[in-house]
Order: sequence, then structure tokens, then C-alpha cells
Amino acid sequence: MKNEAICKRDEDFAQWYTDICLKAELMDYSSIKGFIIYRPYGYAIWENIKNYLDKEFKRTGHDNVYMPVLIPESLLQKEKEHVEGFAPECAIVTKGGSEELEENLIIRPTSETLFCEHFAKIVKSYRDLPKKYNQWCSVVRWEKTTRPFLRGSEFLWQEGHTIHATEEEAREETLTMLKIYKDMAKDLLAIPMVTGRKTEKEKFAGALETYTIEALMHDGKVLQSGTSHYFGDGFAKAFNMRYLDKNNQQKYVYQTSWGLSTRTIGAIIMVHGDDNGLVLPPYVAPTQVVIIPIKQEEEGVLDKAYELEATLKKQGIRVTVDSSDNRPGWKFSEAEMRGIPVRIEIGPKDIENNQCIIAKRNTGEKITASITNIVDDINNTLEVIHNEMYDKALKHLNDNIRKVSNYDEFKNVLTDKGGFILADWCGDENCENKIKEETSATTRCIKGDSQGKCIYCQKDAKYEVYFAKSY
Amino acid sequence: MKNEAICKRDEDFAQWYTDICLKAELMDYSSIKGFIIYRPYGYAIWENIKNYLDKEFKRTGHDNVYMPVLIPESLLQKEKEHVEGFAPECAIVTKGGSEELEENLIIRPTSETLFCEHFAKIVKSYRDLPKKYNQWCSVVRWEKTTRPFLRGSEFLWQEGHTIHATEEEAREETLTMLKIYKDMAKDLLAIPMVTGRKTEKEKFAGALETYTIEALMHDGKVLQSGTSHYFGDGFAKAFNMRYLDKNNQQKYVYQTSWGLSTRTIGAIIMVHGDDNGLVLPPYVAPTQVVIIPIKQEEEGVLDKAYELEATLKKQGIRVTVDSSDNRPGWKFSEAEMRGIPVRIEIGPKDIENNQCIIAKRNTGEKITASITNIVDDINNTLEVIHNEMYDKALKHLNDNIRKVSNYDEFKNVLTDKGGFILADWCGDENCENKIKEETSATTRCIKGDSQGKCIYCQKDAKYEVYFAKSY
Repeated sequence: MKNEAICKRDEDFAQWYTDICLKAELMDYSSIKGFIIYRPYGYAIWENIKNYLDKEFKRTGHDNVYMPVLIPESLLQKEKEHVEGFAPECAIVTKGGSEELEENLIIRPTSETLFCEHFAKIVKSYRDLPKKYNQWCSVVRWEKTTRPFLRGSEFLWQEGHTIHATEEEAREETLTMLKIYKDMAKDLLAIPMVTGRKTEKEKFAGALETYTIEALMHDGKVLQSGTSHYFGDGFAKAFNMRYLDKNNQQKYVYQTSWGLSTRTIGAIIMVHGDDNGLVLPPYVAPTQVVIIPIKQEEEGVLDKAYELEATLKKQGIRVTVDSSDNRPGWKFSEAEMRGIPVRIEIGPKDIENNQCIIAKRNTGEKITASITNIVDDINNTLEVIHNEMYDKALKHLNDNIRKVSNYDEFKNVLTDKGGFILADWCGDENCENKIKEETSATTRCIKGDSQGKCIYCQKDAKYEVYFAKSY
Repeated sequence: MKNEAICKRDEDFAQWYTDICLKAELMDYSSIKGFIIYRPYGYAIWENIKNYLDKEFKRTGHDNVYMPVLIPESLLQKEKEHVEGFAPECAIVTKGGSEELEENLIIRPTSETLFCEHFAKIVKSYRDLPKKYNQWCSVVRWEKTTRPFLRGSEFLWQEGHTIHATEEEAREETLTMLKIYKDMAKDLLAIPMVTGRKTEKEKFAGALETYTIEALMHDGKVLQSGTSHYFGDGFAKAFNMRYLDKNNQQKYVYQTSWGLSTRTIGAIIMVHGDDNGLVLPPYVAPTQVVIIPIKQEEEGVLDKAYELEATLKKQGIRVTVDSSDNRPGWKFSEAEMRGIPVRIEIGPKDIENNQCIIAKRNTGEKITASITNIVDDINNTLEVIHNEMYDKALKHLNDNIRKVSNYDEFKNVLTDKGGFILADWCGDENCENKIKEETSATTRCIKGDSQGKCIYCQKDAKYEVYFAKSY
């Protein structure tokens, strides 16, 4: 049974995306443009991502903190590149308690400056290092063009901020956190990521190096899904973050920051979704199994459904029974729209035979299973679904990374196929800018060094780079 | 060993409080007045409160959501009493993305109006009810006088918002959530609460009824620690929140909201703290046990300490080893300042005898314990400490609730003893205002009906009321 309420994915990808956001009840619009409401189903996905990452952050020695939502304008201006990157997007508080403020306050677009000010105050000696902090919050960036989860004037994220005694340790931290993001994407979201370093042009405002995880969407465009920055001692010098080392010498600290946001919900939709709606990877799904009773008005059917629910719930499976008075077909559509990984159908005949039907959302396959082994069967099915979804996304990714050897080929592949394009590049920002102007493809990240010729200017290339059109 | 760095509690309670906030590293000041930084130790306490409550909210059928941080001025103005209550405290955004905004936006002081707007949009039929939502966020209220955790221009909290088909159901929800707060305070914070309904004057802006949990601090002042509001259909009418009932009639919904904030951290400090610093109830303590090795340079001591740590950690006990190169006495002071409930001392002689010393932070008692039964001993000790702390706080509360029969007695008790004063009151706001003006005591909540005479005007009393000076 098709749900006719949403646009077909390959007819109008943008409309299909918005339809899913609304019809699966992930979000709703508020009355302020670019500020969305995270509805229970969307927020529950974020909670699962949050729980996974929070555990990993703590396992790797990070502490959660909370910094103020407002930043004095003068504080934001302390690091020059940083403020230039964010000033155009700021929401500014000019009045508080019915009085004009003496200094404007900015709603945090990111909190580097607040962490720097605090670190400078509390760190005196090498004994105080490292400081490895994280905060879960929302940030505000005034965007002109907004889309649910992908680009909003407010979004939810975590921002990690760490300072270290040595460059090596800070560099290691940057890559450790990138790996945690990449692993989370694989283990929880069933999304394979292309990772690498950003070019100078694309890196974070104020960072020396930015590393990124980039995911390929179904339509061939790419979504930056998390970033990890190495700052060197740039902010340390601007904010005077120093410590006394073991030899009683004043040294500047080395710094990182890293963030991942509710954008990842957009990635889940655009990587896995289909014409029937959302398709959720099992480990991030708020509801992993929906039990739909058939002929529920017959004696014993609902009882058996609830018994099954209790059995699965006891084993930590996130399960619910749809006992509403809608027709089963309507319930199937609803469960498909919400992307629930497994549907169990159980009716009077099944109960007679001590069995039920297990249907997989990702492939539509149905099997008949014995109720005796239901816990193992469901756990196995969830694992199979996760692996199938990851493998499918990985195949789509691998099929859509194309090495090109000249600019015409670059443009043709970009127009005909999309996806990631691997090309050699001289490292000159002019070529990068021209390519963006002429094709709207941007560098996503650097794969490695190159001995070839720049795709644009034909001069000696420095890097092999992933290009793509992106969200 | 006394920590000389903090003020004595009974010499200057306010200074003692601030000293603990800073020296136990619960918080730090930011550069904006009233906006504090929640440091790892303070935030971890909040996380434990959050985890307890979040589980309870979910158990009782609530969903988490996230609403925008900004509210259009016109939306906040839709309910008259509500906006009058909050307008003087608003932080106002007038510029976004370097342009003047057409309409001012308020940083949420509370989110009733946003929830109402959303509810009005998504609820059509009785099938859509109830909606039981909660959000974890920070709110901003521009305060003139601020104190860490107790009164801030920004604080962390949860705000629950629910709508129901019937008045009974909404009233039941209001009281259910009050009970969850009260139970949390008892089970987690070891704080007994006085509960009851607020007077008209003291209720929440826009509510029909406000219920409160009120805690008695060591200095005899009282802290409102959580509130639960019944709105009737007031907001429903202002925001047109209607549904079609089973008979196809349009009906207004009945509404509640309830909130608890990081104020509760202030309550923990002021109820349990002593001259040596913070005293944390075991179940909310980020670190429940600190192991301090004695003569740690001797072979096998540190190994044994880590072995003990691993044993306890495996059983879910939050434990750490202080292996820093400070003297044991310094480590004791530090652990006391941070209020860690249990200290284990272990040195070469203890190891020889397969024993260790367990010291209780709350009473200072020390016992020698066998290492063989250490898990049970520690779990028992944590439970004993919790109960002792609760009982002590309960005794302090019961000893400081005093019924008075005339206004002179009222004033004398207030000046000499503080605490809660039970008095009869006519129900007239004029008397309530006069008492506040003349004594600075306010009504905390209504205990019940009264047949006596008003303490102020001598007319027939309606209620028996708890009065107190409060934070």
C-alpha cells in the first residue's frame, strides 16, 4: 500500500524531503522563519545520537559543561578570522529588562570565545591540562535560505572544546573525535562517510585545519555532517591562554573544537528514505518494532500482541503495539512513513500456529517466524537490516566516486551523475573559486597528495581532492 | 583538617555559599552579569537530576521536544497576565544577520506561548489528546540581583507542557508532576519538601493554580524548588486550542505546565553543606567514593587502590582514585570540599590486613572494613548516608515549622528563628502584602482550610498558610 500523500523521491527530491519531515512528524515550522520545532519523533532520533556520542565523549575523558547563551560583542571580536566568519549571521540582543544594553550581546553562533575566556581564567599550570570539555546546546546563525535540519537559523548540536599542553596531543584529539563521528555514522546511522581535511577556503573560521565527515545523499549531492578543528595556538595567543610548564616556563596551549548537529537527521532521511517515507536504521530508530494485530477484535489477538510487546521490551527492544481502530493497511502505511525498521503482523491464524509475520521496512521482505524464538529473530533481523542499509549506502557511495582527468569530464560527470568527483588540484584558491563559480561544485575534502595536473589551470597539482555539489 | 579557604557557615551564610560554589568548582562567573558557567562538577550534578527526572517523565508517558529559543513579541503578548508577568525580564533581539528585525524577538523566559501555538496547530480531535511534552533547555530572565544557581539571568531547567480533554485529567497531571518533584527531592537530593498550593498573589503568571515544593535552608530561609501549574482553559481560549470531541463538538483543552531548574543545586548546598564545604547526597553525587592511597609510593599501594576502584566501578559505583602527588591531608580536604560522600583510605598496613578505612563525609565517622565485602559495605554505607542526611534535614524542617497565634509572635519567631511559620490568613491580598512589606516574609503555600482568625486583620481566616523569608 503506497502512501499517496508524499511526493515521489525521483520526481522532486526537495519536495519529497520536506514531505517526509512533516508527514513523519519529525518537525514542524514555528512562526519565525528558520526556527523549527523538533517534534517527539524527530527529537527522539536526536536523543539516540546524543546518547551514543555522550557515552563516547565520556569514555574518552571529556566532561560536559554549560556556557552562557550570550556572548559580548567585544569578546566575539577578539579573534579576527573567527569574527569575520560569524558576524554576518549574528542575532543581536540590544535590550534587557526594558533597558538598552551598554554593549550588544550575541546569541552564540558557536562558543569558542566563551571557552577561551574561561580556559584562560582556570588554567595556570601543566597540572591543569588537558581540559576536554563538551556542551550540548542550540546555536543561532541568521540564515537567509533555510531547510528543516539541513540549514536553520537555530539548530541543536554538541560542541567540544579542548586545550592541551602539546601540539601532538591536540592534533591527536582532532583526529580521535573525527573517528568517533565516523564510527557513530556507521554504527548508528548506517551511513558511510568520506573523511579528510578541508581546504584553506572551506575550513572553519579561525582554525588551522578542519577535518570533516561528508555523506552522499540519494540525489547525488553531498552533506557535510560533522567537523573537527585543530586551532594550533591562534586563539591561545588572542585570549592569552598560557600555562607554566614543568620547567616553570610560560607556554601557550594547543586547542581543538569539534561539532555535530541535527543536520545528521537530514542525512538519515536523504540517504535511506524511499517513496513510502522514512527508512530508519534500527539502532537510531525511536521505535524499532511495531506490532500490528490482524483482526484485533477477535478474542486473544490483542492479548497476544501485548504479550509479544512485553517479551521484546524486556530484552531492551524498542517496541510498540498499534491497537488504534484504523484498518491494518492504514497502520502499515503509517509505520512505513515513520520508517519503523520491523513490522510484526499477528492474527488469529498466526496465534493458532504459534507464529507471526516479520516484515522488513528496508526491503519489504516478509518471513514467517516462530513466536518461541522471537527475541533472537528480532535481534538478528535488526542487525541484518542495519547491515543491509549500510551496505546499500556504501555501494551507492562507491558507485558515485568518479576520478576525472580533465575539466570537461568534470563538468559532464557533475551534470549527468553528481556524486563525489575526485580531481587533481594545484592548491590555488583562485582555481577553487573559479570551479565553484562555473559549476557550483565545491571542494569537500582533500584525499591526499597528487603528482598530476590541476583540473582547472593544468599546472602541477598538489592535492587529489573530492569535489561535489553540497547542501 | 579544616579547609581555611572558605568562610564559616554560621558567620556569613551568603559568603559561605558563594565560597562553596567557587571552591568546589561547581560554577564560575562569565563576563556577563547573571550568566554563569556550569563547570563539570556542577553540570554533572544537574545531569544526575536530569537523568532521574527524564526517566520518570518517560515512564509517565511524556515525550521530549525542542521549541525555538526565540518568541515573537506579539506571540508572548497573546495571554495578558502571562506577558505582564514576564515583560519586565525579557532579553530582546532587535537585529538579525546585520539587519533590523521587523518584529522584536524575545529569548524565551518560559515557553507556554510556543507550545500553545504548536498545540493549536496539531490537535484536531479527541484522538490527538492528551499531548504530554517536556523540554530540557535554558531560559533567560533579566534579573537585577543575581546569585549562582539561586537567581540567574540564565538558568537550565525542564519545562513540561501538557494538554488534556478534561479538567480532571489536567488537574491529576498537575499533582502527579508535583509528586515526581517531591519524590526526586527525597530520593536523590535527600531533601524533604513542604508542598502545597500558592496563593493568588504568588501563583504563576497566567495559571489558575500553582503548586510548589519548598525546601528549608540551613539559615532558616526557604527556597522554592519546583512548581506545577494548572491553567484551566485560559491559554486554550487565548490561543484557540480546540478539539472535536466524540460527539463532534468543539471543546477547549485543559492545560498544565511544570518546571524544575538548576536552583535545586543551590538547595543541595544550603541544606547539606558544612564548614568543610559541600556535602553531597550519595545518589546525586558525580563521584560517590574517592579512594585515597596512604604512602602511595610504597610498592603495591597504588595497584591495590586501582584494583579496588575497578571492583567498585564494575558494580556501578561512581568511584575515583586520587593518585596526585599531593599529601593525603590535602587530598582529604579537597574531597571534603567537593562533598564526596565516602572516602576510602588504604595504605600498606591495611593491605597486609586485607582491609581499608571507610570515612563518611556527612558525619566524619570512620570504620575499618574488610576488602572482601567492600562492594556490599560501600553500597550499604551510601544508603546509610543518604538516610542520615534525609533524616537530619527532616528533623531540621520539623523543628522549624512553628504555628503562631498572633502577629507579634509571628514577627518574633521570624526574627529569632526563621523557618516556616504556620499562620491563619483571611485570604485577602492586602493582608498578604502588608505582612510582606512589614516583615519581608511571603506566603510559601497553603496548608489547608482554617476556622481561626487572620494573623493580620483578625477577621475570619480562610486558610492556614506557610509563611517564610525566601530566596
